[in-house]
Amino acid sequence: MLDKPAVENVVILGLGLIGGSLARALRKSGFASRFIGYGHREGSLKRGLELGIIDEYTLDLDEAVNRADILVIATPTLVASRLLEQILPRLKNLQHSPVVTDVASVKGSLRDTALRVHGSMPPGFVLGHPIAGSENSGVDAADENLFVNHRVILTPVEGNSSGAVELVRQMWLSTGAEVVDMEVDEHDAVLAATSHLPHLLAYALVDALAQSEASEDIFRFAAGGFRDFTRIASSDPVMWRDISIANKGALLQAIDLFSDQLGSLRSAVESEDADALYETFSRAKVARDQFSAILAARSE
Amino acid sequence: MLDKPAVENVVILGLGLIGGSLARALRKSGFASRFIGYGHREGSLKRGLELGIIDEYTLDLDEAVNRADILVIATPTLVASRLLEQILPRLKNLQHSPVVTDVASVKGSLRDTALRVHGSMPPGFVLGHPIAGSENSGVDAADENLFVNHRVILTPVEGNSSGAVELVRQMWLSTGAEVVDMEVDEHDAVLAATSHLPHLLAYALVDALAQSEASEDIFRFAAGGFRDFTRIASSDPVMWRDISIANKGALLQAIDLFSDQLGSLRSAVESEDADALYETFSRAKVARDQFSAILAARSE
Repeated sequence: MLDKPAVENVVILGLGLIGGSLARALRKSGFASRFIGYGHREGSLKRGLELGIIDEYTLDLDEAVNRADILVIATPTLVASRLLEQILPRLKNLQHSPVVTDVASVKGSLRDTALRVHGSMPPGFVLGHPIAGSENSGVDAADENLFVNHRVILTPVEGNSSGAVELVRQMWLSTGAEVVDMEVDEHDAVLAATSHLPHLLAYALVDALAQSEASEDIFRFAAGGFRDFTRIASSDPVMWRDISIANKGALLQAIDLFSDQLGSLRSAVESEDADALYETFSRAKVARDQFSAILAARSE
Repeated sequence: MLDKPAVENVVILGLGLIGGSLARALRKSGFASRFIGYGHREGSLKRGLELGIIDEYTLDLDEAVNRADILVIATPTLVASRLLEQILPRLKNLQHSPVVTDVASVKGSLRDTALRVHGSMPPGFVLGHPIAGSENSGVDAADENLFVNHRVILTPVEGNSSGAVELVRQMWLSTGAEVVDMEVDEHDAVLAATSHLPHLLAYALVDALAQSEASEDIFRFAAGGFRDFTRIASSDPVMWRDISIANKGALLQAIDLFSDQLGSLRSAVESEDADALYETFSRAKVARDQFSAILAARSE
C-alpha cells in the first residue's frame, strides 16, 4: 500500500479481464484514488460498478479523456488502434494531458498508428504489454493478483517523455509485476515466436483434426500431451484474429522459421534418418528443460 | 482385489515406468502371484527388486519366456520389435506357450514384425497400448495407479486366439484401466494425429526458437501458453525417434494434413483475410472446447 496515491483518476477503456484486474490491483496498492470505466458495452461497466472495480463510468470519450490522469486502453489490439485515433487528437487541446498507455499484445501497429495520427510519437503515450492472462475472460474474472510476479514489457520510443514512462512503470510495479523495457520490434518478434505462433499452430492442428474423418476417435483417445498442447486453441478467436493481422510481419517470419524446421523433420522421418531425428529432439529437450528451470527460478 | 490370481507368473521385459507400474498395479489387484523382471540393464532390475516391484529377475531370455504365463514387452517400440524377433521362434518349442503382449505406441510395425518372423499372426501375441505416461521415467517412478481411468487400446488381429485377447483384457481391467479395441491402422492414425504429430511440432518449435538469435529473450519472456504448448518437447528423444520411424506412414500423413492447414492460415495472415482467420480459429475453439468437455466427463 502506497503512503499516498500517485495519481487521482485512472480511466480504464475496455473493462475486461485485463482492465478490470488492473483497476483492482491499483485500488489494492493505493496507486490511484478513483477508477473510471469507459466502453461501448454498458453491461460490463455496470457490472464493474456492482463489483466495486470502478467507482463510476462514462460512455463519453471526451469526459473519459478530460478526467483522466492515466488513461489505460485495455482493449484488443485493433480496437486499441481505433481508440488511439480518436484519443490523440483530443490531447492537443488539453492543458493537463493524461498519460496514455495500453496493454495490447502487438506494439508496432500501435506505434505506427500514433505516428500516423500525431505526426510524431506523443510524449505521453507509453506502449505497454502485461504478459498475463487467464482461461477466463470478462470483468467478472478480474483478479487483483493477476499481474503479481508476471512480466510487463514497456517499449518506450523516441519522443516519449521520461516522466510519462516512469509513471506507467510505477503503476505496473505497484501491481506486483516485474517491469522490463524492450525495443518495439524486438517485443513483436519475441511475442510472435513465444505466443502468436504457438496459438496459430494450436488452432491449425485442432481445426485440421476436427475436419478429418476420424475426428471423433481422435478426440476420444487424445491424452494429456494433446490436452496441454492444444489448450490455447480455446482462446478468443477475435483477439487472435486481430493479433495475427496486427503482427503480420513478425508472425509470417516465425511461421516460415517453424515451417522450415518442420520440413527438415518431415524429410528425416521420410528417409528414416534416426540420427537427424535424435539430434533435433535432443537439442529441443535440452532447450525446453532449460526453459523449465527458468520458470522454476522465476516462481521462487 | 481378485479372489484368486488369474495367472501365476507375469514376466516384464524392460522394467521402466510402464513395466514397473503394471507390475505394481497387478500385484495390488492380485491378478498374478509372481512378478519376474527381464532386461539388459541389471541396475533397473536390482532396483525393481529393492522396491518390491518384482520378486526376482533373470538376464536369460529363455528362462524369461519359459517361466512366463504372461510376457509383457514393456520396452520402446524398436526394442520391442527386436525382442519379438527373438521371442516368437522360442514359443514354437514350448508346451505351454505364454500369452505375449506389449505396450508400444505403434502397433503396425510390431504386427508386421510378427507376420514376418512367424509367417502368420501368433495366436498368443496380443498387441496393446496403454495411453498413460508421466513426465518422470524409470522404475523409480513406477506407480500402481498409473493406469486408473486411463485408456488401454487393444488391436486384436486375425489369427489371435480369443482366449489370449481376453486374458490381456482382464489383466488391464484389473489395473483400473478402460480397455477398448481398435483396428491396428486406425490406432496408428489416431495416435499419429493426437500424440506423435504434436510431439514433432513441439520439438520443431522449441528447436527452431532455440537456434534463433533472440533465443535468450524468447525463453525469458515466454508465458504459460508456451509452457503448456512445449511441455512435450521435454520427452525422451530416443523413444520419440523410434516412434517417428515406426509410425512413419501415418505420421507423414498427419504432418502433411497439418502443413496444408498451416499454409492456409499463413496465406490468410499474409492477405490479412480476417474472415478466414476468424472462421478457422472459431471452428478450432469449438472443437477444443468439446474436447475439454469430453475430458471433464471422463475424469468424473
